[in-house]
Amino acid sequence: MTGSTAAPFTADDYRARMERAAHAAADAGLAGLLVAPGPDLVWLTGYAPTAATERLTLLVLAAGQDPVLVVPTLEAPDAAKATGAPALTVRDWTDGKDPYAATAGILDASGRFGISDNAWAMHLLGLQKVLPGTSYASLTDALPMLRAVKDAAELELLAAAGAAADATFEEIRNVPFAGRRESEIALDLSRLLRQHGHAVVDFTIVGSGPNGANPHHEVGDRVIERGDMVVLDFGGLKDGYGSDTTRTVHVGEPTDEERAVHDIVRAAQEAGFRAVRPGVACQEVDRAARKVIEDAGYGPYFIHRTGHGIGVTTHEPPYMIEGEQQTLVPGMCFSIEPGIYLPGRFGVRIEDIVAVTEEGGRRLNDTTREMVIVD
Amino acid sequence: MTGSTAAPFTADDYRARMERAAHAAADAGLAGLLVAPGPDLVWLTGYAPTAATERLTLLVLAAGQDPVLVVPTLEAPDAAKATGAPALTVRDWTDGKDPYAATAGILDASGRFGISDNAWAMHLLGLQKVLPGTSYASLTDALPMLRAVKDAAELELLAAAGAAADATFEEIRNVPFAGRRESEIALDLSRLLRQHGHAVVDFTIVGSGPNGANPHHEVGDRVIERGDMVVLDFGGLKDGYGSDTTRTVHVGEPTDEERAVHDIVRAAQEAGFRAVRPGVACQEVDRAARKVIEDAGYGPYFIHRTGHGIGVTTHEPPYMIEGEQQTLVPGMCFSIEPGIYLPGRFGVRIEDIVAVTEEGGRRLNDTTREMVIVD
Repeated sequence: MTGSTAAPFTADDYRARMERAAHAAADAGLAGLLVAPGPDLVWLTGYAPTAATERLTLLVLAAGQDPVLVVPTLEAPDAAKATGAPALTVRDWTDGKDPYAATAGILDASGRFGISDNAWAMHLLGLQKVLPGTSYASLTDALPMLRAVKDAAELELLAAAGAAADATFEEIRNVPFAGRRESEIALDLSRLLRQHGHAVVDFTIVGSGPNGANPHHEVGDRVIERGDMVVLDFGGLKDGYGSDTTRTVHVGEPTDEERAVHDIVRAAQEAGFRAVRPGVACQEVDRAARKVIEDAGYGPYFIHRTGHGIGVTTHEPPYMIEGEQQTLVPGMCFSIEPGIYLPGRFGVRIEDIVAVTEEGGRRLNDTTREMVIVD
Repeated sequence: MTGSTAAPFTADDYRARMERAAHAAADAGLAGLLVAPGPDLVWLTGYAPTAATERLTLLVLAAGQDPVLVVPTLEAPDAAKATGAPALTVRDWTDGKDPYAATAGILDASGRFGISDNAWAMHLLGLQKVLPGTSYASLTDALPMLRAVKDAAELELLAAAGAAADATFEEIRNVPFAGRRESEIALDLSRLLRQHGHAVVDFTIVGSGPNGANPHHEVGDRVIERGDMVVLDFGGLKDGYGSDTTRTVHVGEPTDEERAVHDIVRAAQEAGFRAVRPGVACQEVDRAARKVIEDAGYGPYFIHRTGHGIGVTTHEPPYMIEGEQQTLVPGMCFSIEPGIYLPGRFGVRIEDIVAVTEEGGRRLNDTTREMVIVD
């Protein structure tokens, strides 16, 4: 549960976020936002119910209207303890009553609303039924950048999560690799992330040898051998904010080709980083990194987007991908992670989290991007 | 992930369930069923993707049509490994393509569909947009009893999960309570459930003294004292099927009032159990239990429904609640869990899982319902 980790925000912080969100909704022509349990609700209120269930929990935000959190009566005491609770009104409904009717009274009956991507279809259908004059857009369609621009406190939390991931890499590079299974290295990564303050470990990808050439490979029972390239991609949540970094290490001395491919990916990552500055479109970050790989003749082997946003989740907008014309704004925070994947042989990926500043980019990961030789 | 635990079903079992579901949909006047990742999909196909995401995964069932599982290309190899995969066609869609357009081709463009309660609103909106002539009902509204009647193999799995929960209670009643935190007892419960074969622990509620009077209290740092009532409500999934039982213990000798309240709840639980037989409406189970508590003058302190179904999840239809006129059918399986909650003082709840048989009810929990005194 991301919400159960304490983030150092106050009711005023949440009030400001809710006001900003309500105004962004109005600017987008929406009558309001309907926010279900999940990362949006955590970010706006600090509240994470123990589980998303068939019982409706919904934050209603509309410009010029006080925020209302609709919750089941049984969960009202928990909701009232959320850090953001002083900035909103909790309106509870009791088992056996119609929660949609209870919500309808505070909605514009002919309005268009943004609704959390992951709100339950059951709840959307309930609202559509009691308010047939309303229409809806998913939050990602309506306000993709709602959580994309981080404030100073959020950036420091992301930097601390990045530093913890870096500390994890500095330790993992010293453990033995040859003769151990990918799954054992993954357990080491998970343990280290937790030791360095992560409450949630989202992924610990260990792709050795040919497994590194499948970017969807997570971890397996393959025994790592001398001569293997090993992609290490790991992250999670520390104090409610995400980390995500990748380094590709080599067990023993690499071949010239392995060294050359690693150099190309490193240059591509650097080019992506150098493309970061306010006003540049997201797709330009992708293009800058991709160009280096294409110019080196490996274009067909870079088979995914260059990056994704990070915040209270480890994957969110903005996406660094061809076609994304959203421009970068100071405070946006995302991964830059080009890779080359040679099927059946090996893969290389290098990934840092980067924050947009007035001057350009700030790396939130900064372990060496030179190839590290492990044992 | 419920789906990662092995349930002893075959592709033929899943084929039969999918056919039954498609026919039930047709009988209910639906053009088909749209099933999202979660318990419905596990029950129908044995497939559980590692995470429900913004990438559409959807099982399409319609009478007279072969089942189709729409999945992202990256996840197609995983889907093909599901036990139910031989009974369906996997149709994949690639990043950058419109998954709703890919799905629309196999849907009746003017049909009414049942859709999983927990399908993402984003996905429902995507379907509504490409197929404006369709309409939708949540599966709980359209076919609330889809998974409610368990077959013999399912009942034995539920009985085994119940027995494991009972074994957990028999051990937890012997651990020291006084001087320990609720959270420590909760860890004991979690450890014991796992020792007794649970792959997933869904909840380990420990409500001591005044915390027991909040039925939604989960667990806290309160140190349990001699003289406390302690509500213990715990369960999870064993071999893919759920357990859920509650006993209320007392640390040292109870007062006369504590004993009296416990006796009333026990009588209410017994009355609910005795009301169970085929053909009786669910609400009659609630009424029978509630009447005992109301007659004793504690009506205002029984503030939740009497029970909920259980199967591949620990909370599902049918609900034992006023207004639920669904009649009981042999094979249905649900909790009976009345309680009395005295604010600021203490609470008592007693819960067993009960299966409906031709003759009446069969308890799947059967540890003593007398008040247990602990140290």
